[in-house]
Amino acid sequence: MGVIVQKYGGSSVGDVNKIKQVAKTLVKRKESGDSLVVVVSAMGDTTDNLIELAKQISKEPDRRELDALIATGEMISSSLLAMAIKELGYDAVSYTAYQVGIRALGPHGKSLIENINGEKIRESLLEGKIVVVAGFQGINEDGDITTLGRGGSDTSAVAIAVRLDGECEIYTDVDGIYTVDPRKYSNAKKLDEIDYEDMLELSSLGSQVMHSRSIELAEKYKIPVYVGLSNSDIKGTVIREVKNMNLESKPITGIATSEEDIIITLKEVKNDINIIANLFEKIASKRINVDMISQTSPIEENVNLSFSIPKDDLRECMNIISEFTEKDKVFIDEDITKFSIVGIGMKTTSGVAGRLFKLFAENNISIKMITTSEIRITCAIKKDDKVKAINATAKEFDL
Amino acid sequence: MGVIVQKYGGSSVGDVNKIKQVAKTLVKRKESGDSLVVVVSAMGDTTDNLIELAKQISKEPDRRELDALIATGEMISSSLLAMAIKELGYDAVSYTAYQVGIRALGPHGKSLIENINGEKIRESLLEGKIVVVAGFQGINEDGDITTLGRGGSDTSAVAIAVRLDGECEIYTDVDGIYTVDPRKYSNAKKLDEIDYEDMLELSSLGSQVMHSRSIELAEKYKIPVYVGLSNSDIKGTVIREVKNMNLESKPITGIATSEEDIIITLKEVKNDINIIANLFEKIASKRINVDMISQTSPIEENVNLSFSIPKDDLRECMNIISEFTEKDKVFIDEDITKFSIVGIGMKTTSGVAGRLFKLFAENNISIKMITTSEIRITCAIKKDDKVKAINATAKEFDL
Repeated sequence: MGVIVQKYGGSSVGDVNKIKQVAKTLVKRKESGDSLVVVVSAMGDTTDNLIELAKQISKEPDRRELDALIATGEMISSSLLAMAIKELGYDAVSYTAYQVGIRALGPHGKSLIENINGEKIRESLLEGKIVVVAGFQGINEDGDITTLGRGGSDTSAVAIAVRLDGECEIYTDVDGIYTVDPRKYSNAKKLDEIDYEDMLELSSLGSQVMHSRSIELAEKYKIPVYVGLSNSDIKGTVIREVKNMNLESKPITGIATSEEDIIITLKEVKNDINIIANLFEKIASKRINVDMISQTSPIEENVNLSFSIPKDDLRECMNIISEFTEKDKVFIDEDITKFSIVGIGMKTTSGVAGRLFKLFAENNISIKMITTSEIRITCAIKKDDKVKAINATAKEFDL
Repeated sequence: MGVIVQKYGGSSVGDVNKIKQVAKTLVKRKESGDSLVVVVSAMGDTTDNLIELAKQISKEPDRRELDALIATGEMISSSLLAMAIKELGYDAVSYTAYQVGIRALGPHGKSLIENINGEKIRESLLEGKIVVVAGFQGINEDGDITTLGRGGSDTSAVAIAVRLDGECEIYTDVDGIYTVDPRKYSNAKKLDEIDYEDMLELSSLGSQVMHSRSIELAEKYKIPVYVGLSNSDIKGTVIREVKNMNLESKPITGIATSEEDIIITLKEVKNDINIIANLFEKIASKRINVDMISQTSPIEENVNLSFSIPKDDLRECMNIISEFTEKDKVFIDEDITKFSIVGIGMKTTSGVAGRLFKLFAENNISIKMITTSEIRITCAIKKDDKVKAINATAKEFDL
């Protein structure tokens, strides 16, 4: 018995008619003999609307209660979808994270799935039911409802596929993975397949298609993940291990850009590795993701320290910083586009960074900060330079 | 440590501002030293809106999924209320039925609370928190979410008060219990106190103020229940055992009317007690509440059998009836007001029924069916006669 775990995003279940459409698609697939588990996101803007309600009560709503609140969105869509399947004469059942034992650890709003007790899902599949699971939610060690972050339903789906030794299909509002976001670069090419590592970099660098954690999980357990449109003949993209790299393959797979980060600069920090390490440890303990770090050469005993963080974490980060330095020594730069090129081909191709920097110089694009890994180069540039950078780079690397 | 369990109805938490108001009221009460548990209903029309969504998917939505769906309403209001309390600088926590182990048995939509594991509530109270519990919901023996029926949050509150050995306060949109619904009879008098038994009859006979099951529980465990407006100087009504009945007390306490029932008549049923008992057993097994039954004198071996049921249960009841008789022998009368007079005083006062029937005769009100108990008399009359019946009876018995 092959188990297929499908995930439908918020726009796919945006209203009652779309839910009915998904039910029909599922029933057709079920007829072909597969065992189906379906993970759903909340309907359309439900999550945003619930957050809006919470913000009317508190500028900074309590995180535990916020998670309890927004997790209802997926409970609503999953029960409605199960009803719609039953209405078509097929058996179905909806489950919450509690009911199928999705354990998740870590801070509210950013929890990581730790374990899933797949028993209840397996039993229901054996009874011939289509199983609908509320995505995005987990239960933490205190028995509290927690959430996995925006896009977390992808991770719910992959984790369930891992648990059930099944395959995973992510249905969304884009028809696959592109070298560059097609809304930003109209000539972007769609990929038939992409390696886990490239996809992981692209999604963690701002490509909105998939939740990064879901790719990590899929890679770890070697689960292939299909991404595409539901109910369509247009072929999507398979995320998997891409072996047999031929020599002519391109060094870079794609471009990702993001306006989600800001750069914080701390002037005249004491040049003491213990102090600086302690600062970054505290930031990491709040699961705030520091991407780029730079430090000017020490003059006397002080240094200027710059680093980038997601702008949503600014307030929390400032609380930590206030223990280390005074307010008038902290500077924040919000005019940042994070521009990244990604490709496992970089491992075997040298000179990619040089080509990129030359390109930027020719196009008068100045780089504020840089970070690199084996398979990516990320530059912080001005927001106004984004379009120029995308066009030039896509052309240079034939994306 | 005195534990107070308060319940706020849907109109008390109808929008964000009302939720903030409830939070203020709670914080003031908390300051006075009480340990507070708060049970909330869903905000305003949330439950109806969710049911409406479900009906767009299916005329008869699957009951399990419908319960999973509508239970989210109370999760939303309880997390928002906890946030609002925290925003005022007081500690609070919201819990679902899962989290505090509210076990409920019986059919979906009509489940009865079987047990509550009060541990988590008690711990949180000891930590000084105001505990907010989602009302109306329970978890059944299969681990499914189930609901207690309209008004079920009253029962959640009383059951928690029983478990914690506390007192119960029901805040609603009426300022207490009246002899007659004041919207139907403007001269109705408010009661300072009412006996459990009278209240039970009134609420099960159509007075919308309280969920009947909540009164049963309160009576069983002798928990006094206050009913009234929140945040108001107007004194409400206490439901409790009313001892020391003085001899001048009135024989009847109140009038209840309801348009929720219909009468089903089955013509020419075989006059076999086994068949008839079997029919009513099957109806009862679906927890359909048959109130009045009458049977015409047998002519040959057949009888005509009439009985009243809630009109919401008509479809389910018809499924059962179809096993017993043909469709063309079933007649349904929807022109029914159930008119009841209730009073534990009837136990010691004779002739109440006679006075009522004489009054109806004088006012040309014809009675379709009658049922009586020790402390109530219920007549099915035409809807058009309702106002006449209320006015005449209230005057005759000085209500």
